[in-house]
Amino acid sequence: MVEQLPQDVIARLRALDPAVTPELAQASWALLTPFHEKLGYTAPRIVRDLRYGEHERHRLDVHADGEPAGGSTDGHGAPVFVFVHGGGFVAGDKRNPGSPAYDLVGAWAVRHGWVGVNMTYRYAPEVKWPAGAEDVAAAVGWLRANIAQYGGDPDRIIVAGNSAGATHVADFAAGHGGDLAGVRGAALISGIYTARPTLPGAAPHPYYGTPDPVQASLPCLVESQVPLLFAVAERDPERFQAAIAEVTAAWLARHAAVPNLVWVDGHNHMSAVPSLGVDEPALGVPLARFVERHTTV
Amino acid sequence: MVEQLPQDVIARLRALDPAVTPELAQASWALLTPFHEKLGYTAPRIVRDLRYGEHERHRLDVHADGEPAGGSTDGHGAPVFVFVHGGGFVAGDKRNPGSPAYDLVGAWAVRHGWVGVNMTYRYAPEVKWPAGAEDVAAAVGWLRANIAQYGGDPDRIIVAGNSAGATHVADFAAGHGGDLAGVRGAALISGIYTARPTLPGAAPHPYYGTPDPVQASLPCLVESQVPLLFAVAERDPERFQAAIAEVTAAWLARHAAVPNLVWVDGHNHMSAVPSLGVDEPALGVPLARFVERHTTV
Repeated sequence: MVEQLPQDVIARLRALDPAVTPELAQASWALLTPFHEKLGYTAPRIVRDLRYGEHERHRLDVHADGEPAGGSTDGHGAPVFVFVHGGGFVAGDKRNPGSPAYDLVGAWAVRHGWVGVNMTYRYAPEVKWPAGAEDVAAAVGWLRANIAQYGGDPDRIIVAGNSAGATHVADFAAGHGGDLAGVRGAALISGIYTARPTLPGAAPHPYYGTPDPVQASLPCLVESQVPLLFAVAERDPERFQAAIAEVTAAWLARHAAVPNLVWVDGHNHMSAVPSLGVDEPALGVPLARFVERHTTV
Repeated sequence: MVEQLPQDVIARLRALDPAVTPELAQASWALLTPFHEKLGYTAPRIVRDLRYGEHERHRLDVHADGEPAGGSTDGHGAPVFVFVHGGGFVAGDKRNPGSPAYDLVGAWAVRHGWVGVNMTYRYAPEVKWPAGAEDVAAAVGWLRANIAQYGGDPDRIIVAGNSAGATHVADFAAGHGGDLAGVRGAALISGIYTARPTLPGAAPHPYYGTPDPVQASLPCLVESQVPLLFAVAERDPERFQAAIAEVTAAWLARHAAVPNLVWVDGHNHMSAVPSLGVDEPALGVPLARFVERHTTV
């Protein structure tokens, strides 16, 4: 059984003003949360707030099945699916208590037989580029050393990011954060991969400051040795759509092919990630196939 | 149950030389046919070689469920899924007896509750652009008048094309063939949407002759009132990949968004269509969602 939203719910999602606002977040979660409550969004075992670094935001949650020493029966641990949330570089969190955000991602991973990891990271303006990528690298380093005790395979890590989280994961995959050992793939959901120069008279960006060309991850991203998946929601605003067209052109120029693209039918910037589990044909089916493909032993 | 190919079969597909040759066709069908034979690729009722025009190639097959006056129980007939095969404008057919090509597409449609139609069309060099689009329009016109007696709804027609068939369907959706009444969507699988000018000294194209700019369907395609889906196989050769990048850029310029894109994981120019039914996450899941979305009453 592939969970799928009723057409009328998708129609209501599609009718929302797609601008990235708190109203869009509230309306999207209001439509999707009942389906997550019905399905269940907490994995059998959740270990919260493990520290992967010294900053108070260097924390991650592990979602696993009920077996403390679990993992697959073939002698390997299970694939590890890491989710990096969005929030405009300055906000957001790995969990919103009382809401499925983002325990649902961990539960989705566990239902697929993987270990789920939700991480958070330092915010701008306290830290600047490439601190987000460095935090992803630090979390991956922690997982390499520690995830086996939760049933995960330190050599089969997939990292997924959404919005600003996708940008951090892209910078990481592009080599701006640190070691990529053990990383089998990166899924970039509704991100932007080129930092624009600050317009004359405009305030510096809280995370990029005044971008210089090296802060555009795209030229390095197309050289990444990590397999990539790029997703865009049907109702993502133009700047996210333009990012996908830009990636497609750059990928063609470098690889004579377009990248693994997922167009998330019916969803918007806020609803693509919470489509996981409750509207699987939209994003879950191709994303799970990507994970399975790149974590096959 | 979503049918899915074993990873080792996908790995063998992916290892094939992706150049569009008879060898690729033979190797791809050799890998996939056993799965179709196991699943079954003949709908309960197949009516062959119905004539939609005066030429000997103006023929189509209707695939339906066992009820001669079938259709859905809500007072409407069933959605109608039309498949237009490829073959480089000069070859190919709606059926290869003894093989699942392309009865499998009709069987896939019927399993989804639709009426399936496989059509063929006139070949170049006997006919030139836009004869392919005109043949698609003629077949659609015939279906508008006749498909109700097979359980189909003449107001809910989806047309899908593959390779040269995708080009014909694109020209049709772009308005170069005739009336679009009743057409709810068009799915373009591994097509090319811009006729290149003939290089000096090169032979004229068998279908386009010496292309002129109006024969590029892309400028009209992005204006089409028919909802479109564009699919490209992971292992499609560069010219098909470039077509998708070109469509993406043109769509962004016209609609401030990218189109409905499907990247067919693991498959090649010959295997994407026969993935239907036996490797559903690759193409079948998003294609079925497209049909359901645009044929909802």
